[in-house]
Amino acid sequence: MDGEPVRIAQVAPLVESVPPAKYGGTERVIAALVTELVRMGHDVTLYASGDSRTEARLIPLVERALWKSGSHGNDFLLHEAELSRVSRDARRYDIVHSHLDVLGFAFGRSSPTPWVHTLHGRLDLPELQEVYRQFDDVPVVSISASQRRPVPHANWVGRVYNGVSMETLPFGTGSGGYLAFVGRISPEKGVADAIDVALGAEMPLKIAARLPLERKDDPWVAQDWAYYRDEVKPRLKSSLIEFIGEVGDDEKAALLKDALGLVFPINWPEPFGLVMVEALACGTPVIARNMGSVPEIIHHGRTGFLCSTVDEMAASCRSLPYVDRRVCRQDAEERFSAHAMALGYIEVYEKLAARLPTPLTLRPRREQVQLPA
Amino acid sequence: MDGEPVRIAQVAPLVESVPPAKYGGTERVIAALVTELVRMGHDVTLYASGDSRTEARLIPLVERALWKSGSHGNDFLLHEAELSRVSRDARRYDIVHSHLDVLGFAFGRSSPTPWVHTLHGRLDLPELQEVYRQFDDVPVVSISASQRRPVPHANWVGRVYNGVSMETLPFGTGSGGYLAFVGRISPEKGVADAIDVALGAEMPLKIAARLPLERKDDPWVAQDWAYYRDEVKPRLKSSLIEFIGEVGDDEKAALLKDALGLVFPINWPEPFGLVMVEALACGTPVIARNMGSVPEIIHHGRTGFLCSTVDEMAASCRSLPYVDRRVCRQDAEERFSAHAMALGYIEVYEKLAARLPTPLTLRPRREQVQLPA
Repeated sequence: MDGEPVRIAQVAPLVESVPPAKYGGTERVIAALVTELVRMGHDVTLYASGDSRTEARLIPLVERALWKSGSHGNDFLLHEAELSRVSRDARRYDIVHSHLDVLGFAFGRSSPTPWVHTLHGRLDLPELQEVYRQFDDVPVVSISASQRRPVPHANWVGRVYNGVSMETLPFGTGSGGYLAFVGRISPEKGVADAIDVALGAEMPLKIAARLPLERKDDPWVAQDWAYYRDEVKPRLKSSLIEFIGEVGDDEKAALLKDALGLVFPINWPEPFGLVMVEALACGTPVIARNMGSVPEIIHHGRTGFLCSTVDEMAASCRSLPYVDRRVCRQDAEERFSAHAMALGYIEVYEKLAARLPTPLTLRPRREQVQLPA
Repeated sequence: MDGEPVRIAQVAPLVESVPPAKYGGTERVIAALVTELVRMGHDVTLYASGDSRTEARLIPLVERALWKSGSHGNDFLLHEAELSRVSRDARRYDIVHSHLDVLGFAFGRSSPTPWVHTLHGRLDLPELQEVYRQFDDVPVVSISASQRRPVPHANWVGRVYNGVSMETLPFGTGSGGYLAFVGRISPEKGVADAIDVALGAEMPLKIAARLPLERKDDPWVAQDWAYYRDEVKPRLKSSLIEFIGEVGDDEKAALLKDALGLVFPINWPEPFGLVMVEALACGTPVIARNMGSVPEIIHHGRTGFLCSTVDEMAASCRSLPYVDRRVCRQDAEERFSAHAMALGYIEVYEKLAARLPTPLTLRPRREQVQLPA
């Protein structure tokens, strides 16, 4: 592909727009990747919901993100239709990059164009063992090394960290003097522990979090509400704690750049914690429970602190002023910027293209388009 | 395929065993088809749960049917793994016949062996319009003409009625003098209407039906319980009505052959009502609400009665003794036996094989097997 623009199809979920209106990690990462690939001069086509905003060519299968149009339960069918559409268009591209997990595997396997699949979720479900045994030929990319541990026998062709748009995340000095928590209200995100960390450290904490969804008949949502009622709400009384609800991109950036530190007390092996990287981009160090991808993202003592308990996290808060915030920003720039991510994926695309038995199929003539001499 | 055995892969859902322990229409139909194809001398491989019983070669992906092992929610992943397995084995077969609806489409499209997909469910969901637009090349079979009406633009390659094993359904004279209802307790199956038909006709009614499942947090199950509590239970008081619960195959056959008629007052466009055909096989005419596939299955006045209202159904009961039960049995034999179904599918298989651009791929040399001269 030596310097030439690569014709890339990006296949996004239809549940959220690209970028997402508010919450939505995968769609945010896809948006950052697409923007950067276009900026690098590549020819990018984005398959996504029609309310997406992108500089790439947009091919929408549905008019609006599915969570807005309320098409519950049959998301599966519309994603199958989307993948079928991509599959029929595949000859137009040098590479197809799917973000639909297992759903895309069958479509990619037999396509004339190579497909690669980024796995965005956790891989420790027991059923996935059999899935990756039966699909051990399908090229997959992990978003962290930790993520791939449960399925070492998958056909891993790369590890590309999620990246963020650095321009939207300005560097700050942490002048607000508070701790920040950004995330869902959910036991696995551990906002109650974040409050205990702040109370233990006797520091103010600002919580940017959406309340759980209205659909209380969903058992997961009900669990989040129970967690809110029993663990979170009683802890909100302290004058140190400020609950500011859901935030948009600008508010989040403002919150992070003025924070002394981000508290990230997760209770699950999160394959990648995007908000850690957003904090680093703003120069804000991260105090985190050492699980999942956390030790890959945070350098202990340099860009944050890896802890086991709430007490350890509270004690670490005292060291926050001694972290050089420019190092945090620089680490984000080097490892977690949209540019770093795009370079990582370009490397993957070139690896897969090189594997093709007949390189000619890589650049079929574009229909009805005059090629330059 | 002129008289030669065809090498056929049958791909069944993993949720139930083949045949099913009790309830399970699709798995029952697959069992009947497999038995008949083996009897005809074909070389059949069945992909199904490990607790299936079959004379075909069984390739199990899971040890036990998923409803028994309680793997809720991730059935999708295991079915993807199953299809990937079939896909990798495909060269061993002349035809692959999938019963997994849309799930199998991507796998079949690009296989070296032709795949055909029988659609077992209803097709009037709005999302399916886009699905069948994007998969209009995938060969599909409907189980009735009525079923395919919502998606006329799919690539229909056949209409094959579901068939039943005639030996397990003995002819009877209806000597019990009662009406029968067989089905789920669910508004769309209309057991409350069946009771009103019996009361209106002043005839006894035997109800063979499983109570709804225990999982009351599922909104569909909750709806079935509400229907039972509000509509069914109050009607069970009459001495004419006997509720006999869930029945096995033998009990069902005994119930049907001694019944004067089957009441089938459905409230939804059922793509195929297997119990209608089981009744006909026992010589028992059917009084049905004229919806979905009903008018294709029942000949009004000859093998049953097509009605709109409960009153019409009650009035039709008086005509039941004038139906020639041998005509019902004969019609089942000709149109709805496992044999008729297998002949229908063989015709489909031959049609698809003939479409292959290179007939040679139809019978690839079997690895490590000496072919006769």
